[in-house]
Amino acid sequence: MRYEEFTIEGRNAVIEAYRAGRPIDRLFLLDGCQDGPVVTIRREAQKHGTPVKYVSRERLDQMSSTGKHQGVIAYGAAYEYAQVEDILQAAKEKGEPPFLFVLDNIEDPHNLGAIIRTANLAGAHGVIIPKNRAAGLTATVAKTSAGALNFTPVARVTNLARTMEELKKEGIWFVCADMGGTRMYDLDLTGPIGLVIGNEGEGVGKLVRKSCDLTASIPMKGDIDSLNASVAAGVLAYEIVRQRLLKG
Amino acid sequence: MRYEEFTIEGRNAVIEAYRAGRPIDRLFLLDGCQDGPVVTIRREAQKHGTPVKYVSRERLDQMSSTGKHQGVIAYGAAYEYAQVEDILQAAKEKGEPPFLFVLDNIEDPHNLGAIIRTANLAGAHGVIIPKNRAAGLTATVAKTSAGALNFTPVARVTNLARTMEELKKEGIWFVCADMGGTRMYDLDLTGPIGLVIGNEGEGVGKLVRKSCDLTASIPMKGDIDSLNASVAAGVLAYEIVRQRLLKG
Repeated sequence: MRYEEFTIEGRNAVIEAYRAGRPIDRLFLLDGCQDGPVVTIRREAQKHGTPVKYVSRERLDQMSSTGKHQGVIAYGAAYEYAQVEDILQAAKEKGEPPFLFVLDNIEDPHNLGAIIRTANLAGAHGVIIPKNRAAGLTATVAKTSAGALNFTPVARVTNLARTMEELKKEGIWFVCADMGGTRMYDLDLTGPIGLVIGNEGEGVGKLVRKSCDLTASIPMKGDIDSLNASVAAGVLAYEIVRQRLLKG
Repeated sequence: MRYEEFTIEGRNAVIEAYRAGRPIDRLFLLDGCQDGPVVTIRREAQKHGTPVKYVSRERLDQMSSTGKHQGVIAYGAAYEYAQVEDILQAAKEKGEPPFLFVLDNIEDPHNLGAIIRTANLAGAHGVIIPKNRAAGLTATVAKTSAGALNFTPVARVTNLARTMEELKKEGIWFVCADMGGTRMYDLDLTGPIGLVIGNEGEGVGKLVRKSCDLTASIPMKGDIDSLNASVAAGVLAYEIVRQRLLKG
């Protein structure tokens, strides 16, 4: 398993976890507890945007596995990221042209989870996300991915555009979605491909867009601007699936 | 506008709103306030599952438009539902074969909003949801629909299966998604059609499934069971769009 959830109990353990930069998804504190270490923990929680829940001693005792929670229990998730090479290797082992997702700053963990789920079912070999700004692989992402996080490798890179340029040398073409692009049915999406999905509000960033070889448009008949990011990813991914199936 | 958000300020007004069954999405209470009417409001909020936030007097004063909030401000949303006939009429006016979504107990408001958004952009004429259990049209749904709720009519019916039987008399065919079905590319989805999307956990209910004429499967290559409900709805809706475009 690449993905694992963990519990940290006790004041010092939780403070140290925050200082070591471990990702804490949820924090449970004893209701009414106001002393120094607890104030420090609350400050760390606020700094890191951790949702805090105040609960009774009975509840904490039930949740505790060590029996030594000292009024503080933290939940987190850790994920062992893949390397981009692992993703290419997975495609090679299956004897398939590489099919990967590149997520340019997806911010909503529900969208991120749903997209990883789609990547798994569409037969993509992996997902690439950027190190900064974007949502990381939290417990919410794991849950909305419906288990896909344990099967589909996710790599995290410092510079998406640079990684794309390197992958282009390996023969991968990148396609991003844009209203002004070519109707997706009219593009050949059967070769080695990277599907680029942009941020929920701003779409695909300039540098990443520049690194794309193709721009695909999803036909839109309605009154509003755009599909939800995870729905758009699904529709495009399945156009790739359809083209590959009909060719295969 | 069919959809409208409203604010209710003051203790009696909020209590009356709850008792009249008006949908309250969020409740703001003055922090530390514990008297009788406030306890009653908190009880109503709990009964109706309204998220409650405790805020300062300054915050409430800022939020208030009447200046007479008495420590209580409620936010809600009201939607004027369409009739099923309105949806058929919309198709007729556009000279298109009817295309509607039937949502069998979608529970997550984010999914519901994303599906209404997809229905709008895929050119569907309307959405039908059941009266019980399923998510209603709250502010969260409106927000995730990205405005689609103001354009795409949503009808709410008591008995989905019965409504489907009536619509079949009008020549509409219903297609639902199931892994055991015919590959969606191999079905003719160009006629008058109702796309049936099942509940997130349980899929399409037995009675509704019985009323379906076709069962479509989305090809799945991965390790997990199923796509997110709103992604599956998007993939199927766009297969309908593709077939109609290529035929047209």
